[in-house]
Amino acid sequence: MSGSQAPEPALSVQGDSTAATGNEDTADDDDGTQHSHRMLSFSDALLSIIATVMILPVTHTEISPEQFDLSIQRLLATRIAVYLMTFLIVTVAWAAHTRLFQVVGKIDDTLALLNLACMMTITFLPFTFSLMVAFPEVPLGIFLFCACVIAIGAVQALIVVYAFRLPHLLNPQIGRSAHRGLYRRHILHIVLRGPALCFLAAGFSLFFYPVSYLLMATVVFLPYASKAAGWCRARLLGPREPPAPSVEFFTFDLQEPLSKERVEAFSDGVYAIVATLLILDICEDNVPDPKDVEEKFQGSLVAALSVDGPQFLAYFGSFATVGLLWFAHHSLFLHVRKATQSMGLLNTLSLAFVGGLPLAYQQTSALARRPRDELESVRVSCAIIFFAGVFQLAMWTAALLHQAETLQPAARFGGREHAFMCAKLALYPCASLLAFALTCVLSRFSTAIFHSMQIAVPFAFLLLRLLVRLALALLRALRRLAPPPRDTADPRAPLLPTPC
Amino acid sequence: MSGSQAPEPALSVQGDSTAATGNEDTADDDDGTQHSHRMLSFSDALLSIIATVMILPVTHTEISPEQFDLSIQRLLATRIAVYLMTFLIVTVAWAAHTRLFQVVGKIDDTLALLNLACMMTITFLPFTFSLMVAFPEVPLGIFLFCACVIAIGAVQALIVVYAFRLPHLLNPQIGRSAHRGLYRRHILHIVLRGPALCFLAAGFSLFFYPVSYLLMATVVFLPYASKAAGWCRARLLGPREPPAPSVEFFTFDLQEPLSKERVEAFSDGVYAIVATLLILDICEDNVPDPKDVEEKFQGSLVAALSVDGPQFLAYFGSFATVGLLWFAHHSLFLHVRKATQSMGLLNTLSLAFVGGLPLAYQQTSALARRPRDELESVRVSCAIIFFAGVFQLAMWTAALLHQAETLQPAARFGGREHAFMCAKLALYPCASLLAFALTCVLSRFSTAIFHSMQIAVPFAFLLLRLLVRLALALLRALRRLAPPPRDTADPRAPLLPTPC
Repeated sequence: MSGSQAPEPALSVQGDSTAATGNEDTADDDDGTQHSHRMLSFSDALLSIIATVMILPVTHTEISPEQFDLSIQRLLATRIAVYLMTFLIVTVAWAAHTRLFQVVGKIDDTLALLNLACMMTITFLPFTFSLMVAFPEVPLGIFLFCACVIAIGAVQALIVVYAFRLPHLLNPQIGRSAHRGLYRRHILHIVLRGPALCFLAAGFSLFFYPVSYLLMATVVFLPYASKAAGWCRARLLGPREPPAPSVEFFTFDLQEPLSKERVEAFSDGVYAIVATLLILDICEDNVPDPKDVEEKFQGSLVAALSVDGPQFLAYFGSFATVGLLWFAHHSLFLHVRKATQSMGLLNTLSLAFVGGLPLAYQQTSALARRPRDELESVRVSCAIIFFAGVFQLAMWTAALLHQAETLQPAARFGGREHAFMCAKLALYPCASLLAFALTCVLSRFSTAIFHSMQIAVPFAFLLLRLLVRLALALLRALRRLAPPPRDTADPRAPLLPTPC
Repeated sequence: MSGSQAPEPALSVQGDSTAATGNEDTADDDDGTQHSHRMLSFSDALLSIIATVMILPVTHTEISPEQFDLSIQRLLATRIAVYLMTFLIVTVAWAAHTRLFQVVGKIDDTLALLNLACMMTITFLPFTFSLMVAFPEVPLGIFLFCACVIAIGAVQALIVVYAFRLPHLLNPQIGRSAHRGLYRRHILHIVLRGPALCFLAAGFSLFFYPVSYLLMATVVFLPYASKAAGWCRARLLGPREPPAPSVEFFTFDLQEPLSKERVEAFSDGVYAIVATLLILDICEDNVPDPKDVEEKFQGSLVAALSVDGPQFLAYFGSFATVGLLWFAHHSLFLHVRKATQSMGLLNTLSLAFVGGLPLAYQQTSALARRPRDELESVRVSCAIIFFAGVFQLAMWTAALLHQAETLQPAARFGGREHAFMCAKLALYPCASLLAFALTCVLSRFSTAIFHSMQIAVPFAFLLLRLLVRLALALLRALRRLAPPPRDTADPRAPLLPTPC
């Protein structure tokens, strides 16, 4: 069952290897092994939707200005907390899944079914969070959360054990290695670290629950904390000495858990679901009731719809924002060769704010009804858009720090696309910052400012290449006038024309 | 701007060509052209979510047994109609999009932005449908629908014109052809056919709206009707004579609008969103109110949750069903080389029923509260699952009809995986049929039967390979006992052991 398999040529272990070969005659390996490409995209879609869809209860909280009392405020804060926690825990689970399937290169039917079981358990996590946040003093929420994490760990451990028993399922470089036992111990340790902590937390939840919360937070933030610690150590002490060569190779593999393919797929899922939630709201709320139309508007549907006119404007504006943020992300990743850990973290933060955009839409569309707090709503929307955009820009900056590994030649300093890329990514942060600043000065026209920002930015994207070329030509002309000729590549130059 | 581009080797025009090469260094073509792979996956995700998410208003219709009067029934029927129409129109739009981007092989920034504009218009279609169905006698809904279709047509025509002005963006085989003008006319004709009809419909809507409905239905069902007509003609008169060779090649390309990659991506999106809608309902409805828990259950959260116990069972059952239907689809497409038109149609039908599964979940989870009509609910659920499964099986049968083109060798008659594949795809139809039949005999235990079916099927999938091997061995043994030795490959054999 395992001996006759001819392993692939060892191209690379950096994740793309599984995806790039996934489109050809995939089923003709012997004894039913399959490339894992499509299963991974499906998992990515599931996880990204789960992460994002938890914003819906937040946006569906009805707030009328009269009853805006403390209890509603608490409910809203609760739901935002659930959304953020869910988003974080799902991205952690997604990163662990990515890491696991970088070791397991191929799948068979049993692994596909085990993966489905793992997904089912992960989709249940948001519910345990809702319970925890609604009943912070009852240990049941913690207990269920821990049970889920333990179940996920058990399924993943099963996947590891199963895959190591049939080495042709493994990443070819690990499958052929003599240190397979070492690898297995290492990946099992990683997979079972969280569940072990959760087992402790479940125990503590029975008699002293605050400790459980602490342990649980450790599970959620462990990867981020270890990333941050590693980064600080590297800064302070310089890069670590590589251990024995085989182990070094393996830890290197696990230190880079983000394959570019899967980061793209996860991000696409988030953007797509966010864009779609908007129209769902429109369809549920803005189809007028036939009776209302008869009674209030004398049967004129046009009159009934025109009441909601600003909502449609807000819809198109929000779709344009989501679409163009996706476009900026897409352009960035076209030039990215490989996603480092810090880029992954920044991407997660950017996506968390993108997931908050339906809230911005809800707020700006509710403006028409309650002009009282429109200023606040517009500012919240600007802030959400600003952070979504600025983390993309930060991702680009992080990529530039290691540009030789992470970027295509065209996008590096001095490359053909470098200036244009900068302008593209800086457009949304600058535009939203400008809109925010303008609302401070002209607070009376805040809605008009926000809407004109949303309408102007798409045109700016269309004309961006032209604008950047003009700006560069201008700069070059200026430099020719100036006495000392400096370095030819000036990376900061294209940032100038963007705030228009 | 266009001369220096070295076109790819002309491998095939059958769609996979765009996707298979999408993972490598994509941004280093000259002057900012990009492979369209990621943009197409994003569009697929958007369209599949839009198509499916319209089931939400249906499942969120509150029905309590007392007020189950005619108006609620009408509302429900209306919403189901909107769901089905949306699903169909979005799949039609998706097929047209697939067709368009088989001609346009690469994209640049302008095309990406135009595609976003096209997506934005398509996401607005569900709203026009809601209007039409809520106000069937007011022409505004039709008018808006027509305006959307015309806008989509205009954007797509713009994409075609733009791409034909920069031939390096085209599919290399068309880009290098001498008949480019002919191709452009042909694809423009296809893209603008629907909008032209809609222009007429918009005109008629002002004075005699029934004609508009007729024209609109033509737009929605045109591709299906022309497919069916072509199929009937081919059956009756035999395959058509090929016209001039270049035109023949092109029409062949447009007669096969479904690249396997994109069918997979679209289906994945539908399955993922359906699986996720389930947990959203759980999170919104099943977190008990702290006040309720205090008053009704004396502060016992466990007691409050155990009231909803059956809902959690229903959740896990439904997730398992969606996941395993995805698994069957995934297994099938591993063995598919190329998707024909009839397979695409059957896939659409299967997906429409998969999209109905949240309804089945809602019904079975509501059972606990209203035992009165649980029999009906269980039967509706069985029927939805049956049709979702049986259309998958039909897709497999359709693939077998042209097995030399459509299937990998292992899955053809007599192939290694053939029997196993049959069993996998027949499992859900058989199980749901069996459950349906049992509810007729033992109507009292209908819920128990349904739940045990949902729990038994995953185990059947796990043991399927074993069961099929056993059955085949048994058959072989029987055949050895029987006097005349017949053909070795018996395709119907594995269907026997599945209904257990």
